[in-house]
Amino acid sequence: MTEPPIGEQSANASAKRVRERLAELATIGGEGGGGVTRLAYTEAEREAHRRFADWATLEGARCHVDPAGNTVAIFRDGAPYFLIGSHLDTVMHGGRYDGAAGVVAALEAASALSETRHGVRVVAFAAEEGARFGRPTIGSSLAAGVLNDLGLGALRDADGVTPAAAAAEVGLSPTETQPWLDSDVACFFELHIEQGRQLESGAARIGLVDAIAGSVRLQFELTGRADHSGATPMRMRADALAAASELVLAVEEIARRHRSTVATVGRVQVRPNSVTTIPGHVMLWVDLRDVDPDLQRRAARQVLETAMDITEARGLHMGSRVLSEQPPIVLPAWPRAILYDDCRARNLTYRVLSSGAGHDAAVVARRAPAAMLFIPCVDGVSHSPREQASPEDIALGAEVLCSALRRTDAIIASQ
Amino acid sequence: MTEPPIGEQSANASAKRVRERLAELATIGGEGGGGVTRLAYTEAEREAHRRFADWATLEGARCHVDPAGNTVAIFRDGAPYFLIGSHLDTVMHGGRYDGAAGVVAALEAASALSETRHGVRVVAFAAEEGARFGRPTIGSSLAAGVLNDLGLGALRDADGVTPAAAAAEVGLSPTETQPWLDSDVACFFELHIEQGRQLESGAARIGLVDAIAGSVRLQFELTGRADHSGATPMRMRADALAAASELVLAVEEIARRHRSTVATVGRVQVRPNSVTTIPGHVMLWVDLRDVDPDLQRRAARQVLETAMDITEARGLHMGSRVLSEQPPIVLPAWPRAILYDDCRARNLTYRVLSSGAGHDAAVVARRAPAAMLFIPCVDGVSHSPREQASPEDIALGAEVLCSALRRTDAIIASQ
Repeated sequence: MTEPPIGEQSANASAKRVRERLAELATIGGEGGGGVTRLAYTEAEREAHRRFADWATLEGARCHVDPAGNTVAIFRDGAPYFLIGSHLDTVMHGGRYDGAAGVVAALEAASALSETRHGVRVVAFAAEEGARFGRPTIGSSLAAGVLNDLGLGALRDADGVTPAAAAAEVGLSPTETQPWLDSDVACFFELHIEQGRQLESGAARIGLVDAIAGSVRLQFELTGRADHSGATPMRMRADALAAASELVLAVEEIARRHRSTVATVGRVQVRPNSVTTIPGHVMLWVDLRDVDPDLQRRAARQVLETAMDITEARGLHMGSRVLSEQPPIVLPAWPRAILYDDCRARNLTYRVLSSGAGHDAAVVARRAPAAMLFIPCVDGVSHSPREQASPEDIALGAEVLCSALRRTDAIIASQ
Repeated sequence: MTEPPIGEQSANASAKRVRERLAELATIGGEGGGGVTRLAYTEAEREAHRRFADWATLEGARCHVDPAGNTVAIFRDGAPYFLIGSHLDTVMHGGRYDGAAGVVAALEAASALSETRHGVRVVAFAAEEGARFGRPTIGSSLAAGVLNDLGLGALRDADGVTPAAAAAEVGLSPTETQPWLDSDVACFFELHIEQGRQLESGAARIGLVDAIAGSVRLQFELTGRADHSGATPMRMRADALAAASELVLAVEEIARRHRSTVATVGRVQVRPNSVTTIPGHVMLWVDLRDVDPDLQRRAARQVLETAMDITEARGLHMGSRVLSEQPPIVLPAWPRAILYDDCRARNLTYRVLSSGAGHDAAVVARRAPAAMLFIPCVDGVSHSPREQASPEDIALGAEVLCSALRRTDAIIASQ
C-alpha cells in the first residue's frame, strides 16, 4: 500500500475537517430531512457563531463579537489585514452549505497561512439572509456603516419583531455598532456555493465572480373583502388572492421580458386562509435582481405599476413598500486576477461568472476590495434541505484562497 | 306615555334576549375587532354548546349530547317531532351570527310554542363549518348517517389532526354516533343569515329557501423545486406558486363561464414561504358550488383538467384529492308554503331564493322534510368579523318559525 503524497494527505485532512464541521453546524437548527433553520438573530445563529469562535480559538485566534453580532477571529495581528469569511445564518428550511461553507473554508485558509506581512482575520457575518427581516446582509451592512438606525428600525419579521428587538433577545445591540470595515481591510475574500448551475454544467470546479446582482425587495398589501365562498356571486367579489395571483404571474412575465432580471414572489400571507372564505387580505413579497442597475430599476417600476393596475381593475386597495434596494456591484479585477492565476497554475477548470444572489462581499466591496470564489453545488439547488456541495471542493477552494492570499501578501508588500 | 301593545312587548323582549345571547356567545372564542374563532371540535365550540344547553334547561328542556357533539334540547316529548336549530361553530376569524343566530332563534321559537301535538326539539349541530377539516356539516352528517368512519378518518386539519382525534380531546367520540335523524322528524326548520345581498338589495326581511347549492372541495398539491431566488434563471425554475397562481385564476375563470357556479381558492399553504426562495411546494384548496348537479360536476372536472395542464406545462408534479362532494338539494315545497302563507298574513316582504352556502338543512333534507328561512345580513358579508345582522330580524324570524310550526302542527295532526 502506498502512502498518498504529503500535499494530498493535508488536502484529505482538510476535506475531512470541512465535512465534520459542516455536519456539526448542521445540527444547530437542524431539522428532519437534512434541512437547517438558523434564522438571523436567533439563539441558533448565536450558537453557530460560538461554535465558530471555539474552533478559531483552538487554532490560536482571538475572537470578539461586535454589537451587530458579527464574530471576528484574529489569526494574525496587524494592519492592513486580510479578511476572509461569510455568514452562518440560513433561510427557513435552508441547507447546510450556504454561508457555512465559506466560514469553514476561511478557517482552513487562515490556519494554513503563516508568515504573512498582513494581518489575517476570519469573519462570520450575522444576519446575511433576508429571509427573516426582508432585508439581507444586516450584519455586514452595519459593520460597513451602510445601514443606519432608521433603516434598521423600519424592518420587521413575520411576527412584527424588529431586528434590534430580536438581537436584544440574544444579547446583541446592533444600533450600537461602530462601523469597522475600513481601509485597514487590504482585501476581503469570500468563498460561497454557487447557488446556480453554471459551474456544474461547465464542469468547472471554481467560479470567479466578476459582479454581484443588486436586489430590490418590495412588499405588497392587497385588501379586498372576506366574503362567504358559497353565497357571493363571482361578479360581487373582491378576492385578494385572485389579485395576488395576477401579480405573481406579472412579476414572472416582467422578469422574462428583461434579459438579465430575475424576479420571484417567494412569500405570501393569506387572510383569513379558510377554505370557505374569499381571501380578503394578502401580503406578498417580491425579490427582484439584476446585474444592470437601469434594468433593475425599470423592472421594479413595472412591477409597482402593474400591481396598481391589477388592484384598480378589481376594486381592491393596494399598499406597497420598498423594503430594500441594493445596487449591483462590480468587483475589482486585481484580486480576481490573482485567483485566476492560481487556478491556471493548478490546472483547475474555472469559470468567470456573475452572482445572481447577493452576498456580504457586495457590501464589503463598498468599503474595501473584495473577491468572491464559488464552488459548485449539486443541481444549483440552495435555500433548500436538498442543497449539497462537496467537502473536497470546499477544501480545494480554501487551498486556492490560501495561495491567493500568500501571493497577494507578497505582491502588496513588495509595492 | 303609552305602553306598547302586548305582541310588541314580547317581540321587544325576544329581540333583547337574542341580542344578549348572541353577545354572550360571541365572547366564547371572541377576538379583538369583533371576530369569533370557534372551530369545529374545539373547547370553544363545546363551551358554546354548554351555554346553549344551560339556556334550554332553564326553559324546561332536557338536554343530551350525542357522540358527534350535536346537542339536542327536548322541549316537548313525542314523535313525530319538530326539530329546529342550526350550528355553533365558526370559521377562523368569523362572525357572531352565522349558525348562532339560528340556534338562538330556535330557542325563542321553541319557548313560545305550547300545546303542540308534535314533540319539539332544538338542536345545535356540531362541526358545520368546513373551515377546519375541509368538509362541512360533520355533526349533522353523522346524525343523518351519511358520513361513515372511512370518510371521517380521511379528513385532517391544518396540523394533521383527524376529526375523531380532535373530538376525543373534548370528550366526544364521533365514530360511535348512532344516526338519529329519521322518520321521527316531522320537519326540520333552520333559520340562518343569508350570507348574500339578495334580501338587502330587494328590501326583503325574510328569505324562503327553495334549494341549497351542492359543493365540491378539492385539494391540490403542487410540487416544483425550491431554488435560490437570485441565482436561478427564469427559464430554469419550477415555481410552485406561479403554477398555483395560474390555477387560482383558472378557477375564477371557469366559475365565471358557468352561469350558476361559484368557485373559490380560499386557502393556500406555500413552502418554504421565504422571500429569497422560489416556492417549491404549494397546497391549495378549491371550494366549488352550484345548485345544478351537472354544472357542478362539469366545473369540478374542468378545474382538475386545467390543474393538470398547468403543472404539466411548467414541469411540476401535481397531486389532487376530492375532499368532499355534496349534491345540491331541492327543499320540499310544503313547509316553504306554510312559511310563505305566514309572511303574507303578516304583510312581510319576503323573497324565494337559493342558498349558495351549504347548511345542516341540506343534510337533514336527505332524511326528513326540511325548510330554511333566511334573514338579511349587512352587505351580504359573512365568515368575517364584519358579519352583522339585526336581533330584531332574528326575533321576527323566530316568530315566523313559531307560527309556521303551530300551523304545521294543526295541518299534519288534522290529516
